[in-house]
Amino acid sequence: MTNPVVQKVNPMLTEERAKASFPVEELTYILDGGKFNTEKRREIEELVTKDPNFEHPPIQFMTREQQYSLAVKKALLVQQRLKELDMLDDPYASYFFRRIAMPREVSPIGLHWVMFVPTLMGQCSDEQRERWLQRALNYEIIGTYAQTEMGHGTFLRGIETTATYDPSSQQFVLHSPTTTSIKWWPGGLGKTCNYAVVVAQLHTQGRCHGVHMFLVQLRDESTHRSLPGVVCGDIGPKMGYHTIDNGFLQLNSVRIPRENMLMRNAEVQPDGTYVRRVSNEKLTYGTMVFVRSLIVSDAARGISEAATIAVRYACVRRQGEPSSPGAPEPRLLDYPVHQYRLLTCVANCYGLWFASEVLRDLYFTVQPDVLEGRTERLPETHALSAGLKAVGSNRGAACVEECRRCCGGFGFSEASGLPKIYNDINPACTYEGENTVMLLQTGRHLLKCVERARRGEQLAPSDAYIRSRPTPQPKLAGGPLTADLLLCWLRWRSLSMLLEVSGRFNSFIEQRQAWADAFQAVSRRLTRCAEAHCILYVGQAFLDSAKAAENPKICGVLTSLCRLFLLNEVVSGAGDVQLSRSDLARCQDAIDSLLTELRPNAVALVEAFDLPDRMLCSVIGRYDGQVYEAMLQWARQSPLNATDVHESYELYTRQFLAGRSLAKL
Amino acid sequence: MTNPVVQKVNPMLTEERAKASFPVEELTYILDGGKFNTEKRREIEELVTKDPNFEHPPIQFMTREQQYSLAVKKALLVQQRLKELDMLDDPYASYFFRRIAMPREVSPIGLHWVMFVPTLMGQCSDEQRERWLQRALNYEIIGTYAQTEMGHGTFLRGIETTATYDPSSQQFVLHSPTTTSIKWWPGGLGKTCNYAVVVAQLHTQGRCHGVHMFLVQLRDESTHRSLPGVVCGDIGPKMGYHTIDNGFLQLNSVRIPRENMLMRNAEVQPDGTYVRRVSNEKLTYGTMVFVRSLIVSDAARGISEAATIAVRYACVRRQGEPSSPGAPEPRLLDYPVHQYRLLTCVANCYGLWFASEVLRDLYFTVQPDVLEGRTERLPETHALSAGLKAVGSNRGAACVEECRRCCGGFGFSEASGLPKIYNDINPACTYEGENTVMLLQTGRHLLKCVERARRGEQLAPSDAYIRSRPTPQPKLAGGPLTADLLLCWLRWRSLSMLLEVSGRFNSFIEQRQAWADAFQAVSRRLTRCAEAHCILYVGQAFLDSAKAAENPKICGVLTSLCRLFLLNEVVSGAGDVQLSRSDLARCQDAIDSLLTELRPNAVALVEAFDLPDRMLCSVIGRYDGQVYEAMLQWARQSPLNATDVHESYELYTRQFLAGRSLAKL
Repeated sequence: MTNPVVQKVNPMLTEERAKASFPVEELTYILDGGKFNTEKRREIEELVTKDPNFEHPPIQFMTREQQYSLAVKKALLVQQRLKELDMLDDPYASYFFRRIAMPREVSPIGLHWVMFVPTLMGQCSDEQRERWLQRALNYEIIGTYAQTEMGHGTFLRGIETTATYDPSSQQFVLHSPTTTSIKWWPGGLGKTCNYAVVVAQLHTQGRCHGVHMFLVQLRDESTHRSLPGVVCGDIGPKMGYHTIDNGFLQLNSVRIPRENMLMRNAEVQPDGTYVRRVSNEKLTYGTMVFVRSLIVSDAARGISEAATIAVRYACVRRQGEPSSPGAPEPRLLDYPVHQYRLLTCVANCYGLWFASEVLRDLYFTVQPDVLEGRTERLPETHALSAGLKAVGSNRGAACVEECRRCCGGFGFSEASGLPKIYNDINPACTYEGENTVMLLQTGRHLLKCVERARRGEQLAPSDAYIRSRPTPQPKLAGGPLTADLLLCWLRWRSLSMLLEVSGRFNSFIEQRQAWADAFQAVSRRLTRCAEAHCILYVGQAFLDSAKAAENPKICGVLTSLCRLFLLNEVVSGAGDVQLSRSDLARCQDAIDSLLTELRPNAVALVEAFDLPDRMLCSVIGRYDGQVYEAMLQWARQSPLNATDVHESYELYTRQFLAGRSLAKL
Repeated sequence: MTNPVVQKVNPMLTEERAKASFPVEELTYILDGGKFNTEKRREIEELVTKDPNFEHPPIQFMTREQQYSLAVKKALLVQQRLKELDMLDDPYASYFFRRIAMPREVSPIGLHWVMFVPTLMGQCSDEQRERWLQRALNYEIIGTYAQTEMGHGTFLRGIETTATYDPSSQQFVLHSPTTTSIKWWPGGLGKTCNYAVVVAQLHTQGRCHGVHMFLVQLRDESTHRSLPGVVCGDIGPKMGYHTIDNGFLQLNSVRIPRENMLMRNAEVQPDGTYVRRVSNEKLTYGTMVFVRSLIVSDAARGISEAATIAVRYACVRRQGEPSSPGAPEPRLLDYPVHQYRLLTCVANCYGLWFASEVLRDLYFTVQPDVLEGRTERLPETHALSAGLKAVGSNRGAACVEECRRCCGGFGFSEASGLPKIYNDINPACTYEGENTVMLLQTGRHLLKCVERARRGEQLAPSDAYIRSRPTPQPKLAGGPLTADLLLCWLRWRSLSMLLEVSGRFNSFIEQRQAWADAFQAVSRRLTRCAEAHCILYVGQAFLDSAKAAENPKICGVLTSLCRLFLLNEVVSGAGDVQLSRSDLARCQDAIDSLLTELRPNAVALVEAFDLPDRMLCSVIGRYDGQVYEAMLQWARQSPLNATDVHESYELYTRQFLAGRSLAKL
């Protein structure tokens, strides 16, 4: 534990911690990917925690403008420190440094290193790289990536912004022809950045050549004033993400040099001739897969934070009828319903955590092949990453919200830190591919797999269970409800759902419906197939990781948690698994038993994530469990408490209570 | 429509409106409870809309403190206007006046008329009424109701605040002995109110007589300063409810006259003798039932607002691959998955709307009986209201969130109005009885019903389907999937789930487990039974209301929507309904058909709720459908856009870009 025990720890939490049946520290090493990583992470967390530059009052009491301003300062400070510490080239170190320095505070310059720099790396000609990349890496300029428009999201070809080449001046004219063409959402675009890569339709010699990328300077490098023709600003407050200036950009015939088109894959020559170069578009798929694996792992991290808070709180919160007169009220965690709500969230968290690792490993396995042109496993990888992105972010949001509600009223207070976690992981359901669109991409792949199975072709490992004909349902027959059997059921469910949809799809095609229409006609059910397929993958990843644990105690507790995950899926999808009443009842019994078995490890399972108080920012999820004193201290800082009598009293209430008319105010 | 068409209406919306198969206005009358009510409501909405006193900039751009201050002003102004208009005694009129004047802005004085005044009415002796009630009704004082403590919610007997009688001074000493005993959450307690009814443990003559109520003055009537010994303030920012000062109250040996104990049901005499009077405690059950019916209807109203926004936006938002080259992108509402997501929310909305009406009618039927001591139907009413409160608020939150996500990125922007609706209806899952606790109350009643059925006793109407033995499952047998058949399935599901749990419960009792332990052992499954029971009730109320519509076209569309509701329940609970694969497939086919059938009425079904723009406060849900221009106008008002160059540039970014160290700042 990195948490220095400065206060007396609540004995109720100490008691729960003593119940752990396994060495928590060893599970932390597994989650971090090794003891070395754990130690490194803790060193970094220590560095930031000791640095007075990162200290400030709770941001929940600040206005959005104050939060933004502070985030700019901290984000720049992080970069400076990383450079001083020579950590810029260490992604693991810089990730954890950022995370602890700005816990759940989205960085206003985040898109600079997530999108701007990588785009320059991937899309610039060698000459362009030399000119811009070093300036970007040195932070002489700060950039963002402007693709999404007010009226255009997922469908890239719908982009309306134009870049029209003018050979007489050898310039491109960047223009937003309509309101719907205004760039909308890019992070840091509103106030922070002075450059942007702008995606626009390229027009030259009277022809449109589709979307290309252009480097556009937005603001003066010495005054930061927006340049002529550039209208940009903040898009206004959102449900979360208060620290970042997601922005808009309207371009009114802004001229940029010809050389500012990113020319690795295509070029407009001085006379306006368009030349496309051979490119490996599959490469960008790889990046997408990687980013999506990060979204899945971020969803798991979100649940880990929320569950740590909610489980600790459930240990110290007493509520309800005492079991005998004079006894204290029971703890929340004593209630089976509460155990169920929290432990299924913990199980989802571990499942997604391990699945994201398997997906990331798959990326690292497949990517070198792709670079050498062997793209056989690309469809599987792509389909899995799309579906897992959707399932992961949906589950992430649902579990965080469940943990939040498990904390009753306090879960509604910003003091708990939970609203912020929800609002922070929630947008992942929409960005980087809206979840329904993602599931349909997976669904489309699954339909193809059935077709290929029918032709006797070999399928990729995670698709290998797919057949062109139904298989008999695996029977319980009085045997134990092992994780392997439960996985067989989920595999059978996934296949039987898919075959039904595929059959329906084929009947539409036979009725001479257009492919797109037939696809739409089965789309609703296909999203369910995609979910079932991805859940199966998560379950398999979970079980494999559990079995891989060397310590038998850790292996045991993870296997039980995995069974809880699988049983919960089987029971909630019991109609599709075609469970009999007696099998269903046995599954419910097994869930009840697992709750009793896992309860003593509830705290240990969340504390294995080793999240310091500084990261949780939660009054009720503190390591020391002293929630009530902390709650009072926190509330006293509310700006409304700055004075005993609020100004609204003098302005309105006094007149009103005296029976005087307010209209005269 | 009350919306004045000032702008040109987006032709895509006009087109959708023309598709309605039924007279929308007539459905509005049904929802309002008659044409008279609709007209009255519109008159009131007109009154407020025309009143310049209620005009102000969008509150999303204000700080929480500004939002609170404005809410105080508006809440007081509403009271003043209601008085001037002589509407104070008309609950319908004042409800709609408040709603349109403060759309989803929780009132800082709300608890004055929801809890403070009714408590004085119900708990005061006649003499006390005379002294305080008129002052409260005249708003010479503003009060709140302080029961919940930092460490004590649902379990009333756990309250720690003490009221100790001192016969020498004939005063009560009100005291908060611990941090956990600090009153926490009461609305308006922080800054707005000057009085509170405080719930405390009464001690006199060395004995504790349990919780009683006391009128405590908090603030000076002329200066509003908090009185000696009173420490109160705001509890800090929350996920929503920014306009209200939920507060805390720490009482340090605060003395109040003996006469300030509310003495209708019990009295402490001058010498300290405690006298309890006969009281009808069942009466308070009635109020609880009524309040819970309001929560259900508020959940329906929340969905109606979110669905109106999301359905309109789905008509004007184009997204995705065009069906043929050159064609415009399809509208969101053209996608079956999107139709499914939105129309099931609309179906839930109507279901809950009608169920809340049936529940309210039940209250009005039963309440006179209760007042005369006939309490036979009280258990049924109480169990239904508890369960429907939970199911309604859960569904309400889930559907609003689904509508929000259906709007993609814009659903995350405060411009959509959707985050506010979610944050506003969400706390209903916790307050007035946490939802799990509520479901267990219903579940406990259902267990008793099985017992009574076994003894051959007659059950109340909504419980009458409960038997002590399983019944055969109603078969589809190739017939049509009518709403009545679907209801039979849901009835069968509810009964079979309940009998299984009841059997398990009885086996625990036979094994000599304590009642409370046996109850906890089945509690998780019992909450599922309670949900199934309530969903059945919603479905029945929906179908009855659909059939009651006189206009056959309205009856037709409501019946179809009801079937969608029922099919969705059957399919998602298919395991418990024990559907065969072929029946399940037929249900899925029926859902697809219904989506196609209902799609042309999607706009009409939400516009029947007749929600004016002023109430929706949504840039993307506007009546005129001109969302993009409005979005740009809205964003320009963001405080971050007050200057072209934000101050953080001068403070931090300039130095950073120049390579200077930030630590020196």
